[in-house]
Amino acid sequence: MTHPAAVLGERLGRRLRLGMVGGGTDSVIGGTHRIAFRLDGLYDLVAGAMSIDPLIARATGQADLLAADRVYTDFREMARREAERVDGIDVVVIATPPQTHLEIAETFLAQGIHVICEKPMARTVEDAERLADAVARSGRLFLLTHCYTGYPMVREARALVREGALGRVTLVEGEFASGDRGVAVEPSDPAARHWRFRRESMGPAVVLGEVGSHVHNLASYVTGAQVTHVSALLETVAERREVYDNAYLTVRFDDGASGRLWSSFVAAGNQHGLALRVFGTQAGLEWRQEDPEQLWLRTLDGETRLISRAQPATSPDAHAATRFRMGHPEGYALAFATLYRDFAAALAAHALGEDPSRHLSGLPGVRDGIATLELLEAAERSHAADGAWEQLAPGEAAVARQP
Amino acid sequence: MTHPAAVLGERLGRRLRLGMVGGGTDSVIGGTHRIAFRLDGLYDLVAGAMSIDPLIARATGQADLLAADRVYTDFREMARREAERVDGIDVVVIATPPQTHLEIAETFLAQGIHVICEKPMARTVEDAERLADAVARSGRLFLLTHCYTGYPMVREARALVREGALGRVTLVEGEFASGDRGVAVEPSDPAARHWRFRRESMGPAVVLGEVGSHVHNLASYVTGAQVTHVSALLETVAERREVYDNAYLTVRFDDGASGRLWSSFVAAGNQHGLALRVFGTQAGLEWRQEDPEQLWLRTLDGETRLISRAQPATSPDAHAATRFRMGHPEGYALAFATLYRDFAAALAAHALGEDPSRHLSGLPGVRDGIATLELLEAAERSHAADGAWEQLAPGEAAVARQP
Amino acid sequence: MTHPAAVLGERLGRRLRLGMVGGGTDSVIGGTHRIAFRLDGLYDLVAGAMSIDPLIARATGQADLLAADRVYTDFREMARREAERVDGIDVVVIATPPQTHLEIAETFLAQGIHVICEKPMARTVEDAERLADAVARSGRLFLLTHCYTGYPMVREARALVREGALGRVTLVEGEFASGDRGVAVEPSDPAARHWRFRRESMGPAVVLGEVGSHVHNLASYVTGAQVTHVSALLETVAERREVYDNAYLTVRFDDGASGRLWSSFVAAGNQHGLALRVFGTQAGLEWRQEDPEQLWLRTLDGETRLISRAQPATSPDAHAATRFRMGHPEGYALAFATLYRDFAAALAAHALGEDPSRHLSGLPGVRDGIATLELLEAAERSHAADGAWEQLAPGEAAVARQP
Amino acid sequence: MTHPAAVLGERLGRRLRLGMVGGGTDSVIGGTHRIAFRLDGLYDLVAGAMSIDPLIARATGQADLLAADRVYTDFREMARREAERVDGIDVVVIATPPQTHLEIAETFLAQGIHVICEKPMARTVEDAERLADAVARSGRLFLLTHCYTGYPMVREARALVREGALGRVTLVEGEFASGDRGVAVEPSDPAARHWRFRRESMGPAVVLGEVGSHVHNLASYVTGAQVTHVSALLETVAERREVYDNAYLTVRFDDGASGRLWSSFVAAGNQHGLALRVFGTQAGLEWRQEDPEQLWLRTLDGETRLISRAQPATSPDAHAATRFRMGHPEGYALAFATLYRDFAAALAAHALGEDPSRHLSGLPGVRDGIATLELLEAAERSHAADGAWEQLAPGEAAVARQP
Repeated sequence: MTHPAAVLGERLGRRLRLGMVGGGTDSVIGGTHRIAFRLDGLYDLVAGAMSIDPLIARATGQADLLAADRVYTDFREMARREAERVDGIDVVVIATPPQTHLEIAETFLAQGIHVICEKPMARTVEDAERLADAVARSGRLFLLTHCYTGYPMVREARALVREGALGRVTLVEGEFASGDRGVAVEPSDPAARHWRFRRESMGPAVVLGEVGSHVHNLASYVTGAQVTHVSALLETVAERREVYDNAYLTVRFDDGASGRLWSSFVAAGNQHGLALRVFGTQAGLEWRQEDPEQLWLRTLDGETRLISRAQPATSPDAHAATRFRMGHPEGYALAFATLYRDFAAALAAHALGEDPSRHLSGLPGVRDGIATLELLEAAERSHAADGAWEQLAPGEAAVARQP
Repeated sequence: MTHPAAVLGERLGRRLRLGMVGGGTDSVIGGTHRIAFRLDGLYDLVAGAMSIDPLIARATGQADLLAADRVYTDFREMARREAERVDGIDVVVIATPPQTHLEIAETFLAQGIHVICEKPMARTVEDAERLADAVARSGRLFLLTHCYTGYPMVREARALVREGALGRVTLVEGEFASGDRGVAVEPSDPAARHWRFRRESMGPAVVLGEVGSHVHNLASYVTGAQVTHVSALLETVAERREVYDNAYLTVRFDDGASGRLWSSFVAAGNQHGLALRVFGTQAGLEWRQEDPEQLWLRTLDGETRLISRAQPATSPDAHAATRFRMGHPEGYALAFATLYRDFAAALAAHALGEDPSRHLSGLPGVRDGIATLELLEAAERSHAADGAWEQLAPGEAAVARQP
Repeated sequence: MTHPAAVLGERLGRRLRLGMVGGGTDSVIGGTHRIAFRLDGLYDLVAGAMSIDPLIARATGQADLLAADRVYTDFREMARREAERVDGIDVVVIATPPQTHLEIAETFLAQGIHVICEKPMARTVEDAERLADAVARSGRLFLLTHCYTGYPMVREARALVREGALGRVTLVEGEFASGDRGVAVEPSDPAARHWRFRRESMGPAVVLGEVGSHVHNLASYVTGAQVTHVSALLETVAERREVYDNAYLTVRFDDGASGRLWSSFVAAGNQHGLALRVFGTQAGLEWRQEDPEQLWLRTLDGETRLISRAQPATSPDAHAATRFRMGHPEGYALAFATLYRDFAAALAAHALGEDPSRHLSGLPGVRDGIATLELLEAAERSHAADGAWEQLAPGEAAVARQP
Repeated sequence: MTHPAAVLGERLGRRLRLGMVGGGTDSVIGGTHRIAFRLDGLYDLVAGAMSIDPLIARATGQADLLAADRVYTDFREMARREAERVDGIDVVVIATPPQTHLEIAETFLAQGIHVICEKPMARTVEDAERLADAVARSGRLFLLTHCYTGYPMVREARALVREGALGRVTLVEGEFASGDRGVAVEPSDPAARHWRFRRESMGPAVVLGEVGSHVHNLASYVTGAQVTHVSALLETVAERREVYDNAYLTVRFDDGASGRLWSSFVAAGNQHGLALRVFGTQAGLEWRQEDPEQLWLRTLDGETRLISRAQPATSPDAHAATRFRMGHPEGYALAFATLYRDFAAALAAHALGEDPSRHLSGLPGVRDGIATLELLEAAERSHAADGAWEQLAPGEAAVARQP
């Protein structure tokens, strides 16, 4: 495909204008988004409601070298005023807690502004479906930042499954078992606890929303299959914690495979912890986010191949997501940036009156967001039923199987 | 402790006389046992009923340089005649399929001969308990060859848990997911299928008996905790197979931890596949059988230590199981041999009229064998009940918790 | 230190204006520089003489969204016209072959424009020293892009050596043994050969200039010591090649350590190949560019620590070079960007009339460039003298030892 | 080939009778030899002069359960008396310091007893050649225990080179850089220093004899090429040490390749440190003794294969050296045992009046021993000549190239 930089340079004559809600200087994920949207030179950050705290909003805007009149403290005002400008933003990034996504997204979509949204997409299946409807009504584009799908070797894994290198997929082992320090015991002062560990933020199954959503999405992305049934054990391991921080899901997929998805905040000593293994009738593959340049492929005959990013024999999808030669580790920022880059191609097509859909095919969107919340709610039902198998939203699986 | 070689040399004046049932030239495990009992020079193999096929029995006896009159084809005759000899065997190794263990062990124990028995100990809890009773009545010693407990770094892992390096244990992730070639599809001719994949050998849950027993034993060995409850999904992945070849168990332990035990024959591409991770409130550890010299210890503060076999700072238990200096990989044979070596110390003590119990404390025995079969049967009940949580034999857990 | 973004936002009120010479769409290294200078949002690329081919220059300028009047084909014109503009560039990146660096750098420095220069700094010691003089005369700042010094774990390695974690350094093993495909045999058509394999580009010892410069710089950066003597074997391994493509250097350092520096283009199968091991009287450390997040530290007592980027216990220098939490691989682009970021702090200080020197202390500069070329020329002398030990420029070592 | 156990059982009707000189309970290497010769059940240790200290000799004999009249303190007496017995030893293992090998070997060979000898074979080229002559005159068999050649993956590496998987070999990187604790500083009391660090034991270049011999042998074994020229830097790194403890050799081979061989006792933090990389025009391979089950093969096209012991596609030579299935780590003891096993086949053939030569073809012998000492002496000459290139014994290389 033509690189979006060429499209912007030759046809649009400018970069995409980007706004941000959330992601102030006090935010971790905000800094990641900045690096991701900057590094290919496709976006200019020109406006933001980056904090409801005016001091933080102003400091953030200054560090971002925004014009003073485009530093907002209220996302509604931002949406309205940006829509009025001739040089208003094309697209907004929503980097706030998940329970706020629906309202913010609806607001910007209503003004004709495209949306890039942090995961999980919403707090409930109901909210997620409302957001999906808002996107559909708006005619605007929507990206859900399941950033790990931007890794070349994740795309290679998907290509290998598609081309049958594994035979029929039989078992899927996914885990996002994190163990950052500070997660073992909650502070005795409830006010000192992180917002994501409060029931009101994401409900009790926050571990599924925050990290479980990634591993679920990754498993579906690579295998092309949807989870249809789940048997769950949800647990609270840390003392004084009021939400679940460990989730063991045994699952069935719509292609006949079964597997397990483990989500945890309390895998002490783990640094990141996202990993996927897929086994088939002919071979197995393994990928770990902490070593993202490498993909292991092992056959029944004992052949072990270590597939490297940018290796000539890798798939077109993997090459398309690659920036450097072999041996120059790309890492997390570039994977994240690839989502922005691919979405830029779609946004440019939209701006030029072309069909953006082919640029969206490999990108996470509303269906992925809904699927995660369906899994989350089914897991809660299963846990309440002593581990009994629960079906995800009936009828969904059949639809999801469509390309 | 004094090395058994010194005890044999100074006090007994001879090696231990060993017989073997099963383990003929057509057996894989037989060759492993031979290497294991030879390498420390503590045993002489002097008799065997190594096959019911007289040709194989004779060829095996010849390769083992046995006297012709001590090559048997019937284990009953062997037990009787060896018991009559002044130079009869001290101990017998049973390396036959598990459904035969009970009868063979009872026969030798009845003749006052100690028993070394392959795992799983028996086919059912009932048989395992009968075997345990036979051992108790006989006053003879019994070793169950859960060979992986012989690894120095497994012993180090246990020592680390005991000394509190992990804090309170919270999560236990064990897997023995093997994927040898030839396991993906059963031959269409039932006669060509491996005996262990026949229902009559070990029942449908053979995957739990064959590989699940090891990971279950390893998890208990390292953590010192017993599984009390299980929620199971048992599956048959290979075509035409008539037993389960994949088992996902979610479990609870008597110390409050929870975890998962995965047993599989169909993890395509895996070579061995035994691995254990234990997480606590302060740190996590990880050990993989394919890289057995190394034990990872990672703390909440991000400290990662790679503990090596024979490292000066490792525990006395780990050092006692170590033969070579750091950097000279010991591997599987030496781990297996350590069980023989430690058991030799117990046998020598018994022969010298001393209490052998201190030599047996770290060795797998009848309780381990029973525990595995209890887990197997509870998993079958849970699977039949749609994944409902099942308790293992009531009352056992409390007893097992005793040191 | 205050992040340069805050300094630019609060005090300068704009980004740094950057020009580029070389680095057109047909250049590999140009793309890397773009990612590196973009990702922290500290520079705007506003002008360029990116190719002497007008078509490539224009296409590149368009993709970079440059104003048409700032797309040049002649670097002399660019320097003159940019110096005349009120919004002219602050700093220029030179991404052309090394034999051109001196002239380009002198031109921009003469116009008062700061310089960021690709390595090796020049083709000869004499040229490098002239360039150093030009920098000194100009009062402008100079950065040599030895990008690997931007890795947090390289900085941690340096901090560990400084704080004495290794004891006295005794042995230094560095290698940059690359093996990209296409390097085994030169095309029979001389015109089809890569420019860097022509004698006229860099002289016969191009392997020392291109990759040897990096490993030499890395070894000095981490140990704080300078190479004083070298014994060399230079070889041409690929058929038809007219320059050396493999260099084995045995070296002595001014701190009493000895070591080896291996530079190669023909280590077949290697992907990147830069690695450094430093041994001391108490411990050894190891770092590999292909796994840059991790630093191994091993003591004489067998303790092995795997130090991870962003681990709380790492040094301030390492933390200052870190953008993401542990477990989110940063990789090559971010290391490169850190040089741009640190240099931006120096440039901002200069622009604000402050002393930039503290921002330059950890950055590679003219002395590093000269040292590499001294090593290169001494190695050529040693090779010509049958491996005899040659001293690098007398008197230099003593100076270089000053902090 | 028929396994030696079958040959012994069917045709010789007994095990091989083994004696040992040195290797008492105070010896490290003695314990290793015991494990190695026991584990395949092909040898009975029946006699020994294991120490010149009668107490140690007796304690060792008792632990080995030797008959009292076959526990000797004088190797001359042992050779004479064993030669007189009808059940005298077939073969003797010499596990004493290298300067004693010549005399001991000559003594046993003169009595018609085969010899297994620790490396290095002797202290000088002259002694090594005298020993080779003694072997030739005696008509007896001789094994030099370069144990690392027994690893299946070392044999696979040799097979890959032979079959051209690397193309033409161009570069050979070998190192045996050990760093056991206690090697950094010599005790101030000379009497407390290890015998191998005394000049009178092995001369000043002990590091080449002790560890350098292994890496030199390994490089030749895998590539099939002989070192012809060397440029050396020998160093003494540890304080108070009176011999060299670090040796950097740059070498040329008789097949046109060049390379480096690094031998060290002072690579602090290293555990073992033997590793070999071989690069060719098509691919490179890498093997590390600390991870001996695995062999990396990487091609110019970026294909990376991790070849595992016992993998079906490996060579017959590799399979012949393999005892367990994939994933069951074999390690150092089994590699060592393979030398004993292969030599047992040769000894059995000799005893049965057959030609043993085909069993010896893959085993290290007198030529290997001589080659190492030639390299050692040439390295000393080169070091004395400021690193000038020195030729190994003229005329040897041409001979050595013959199969």
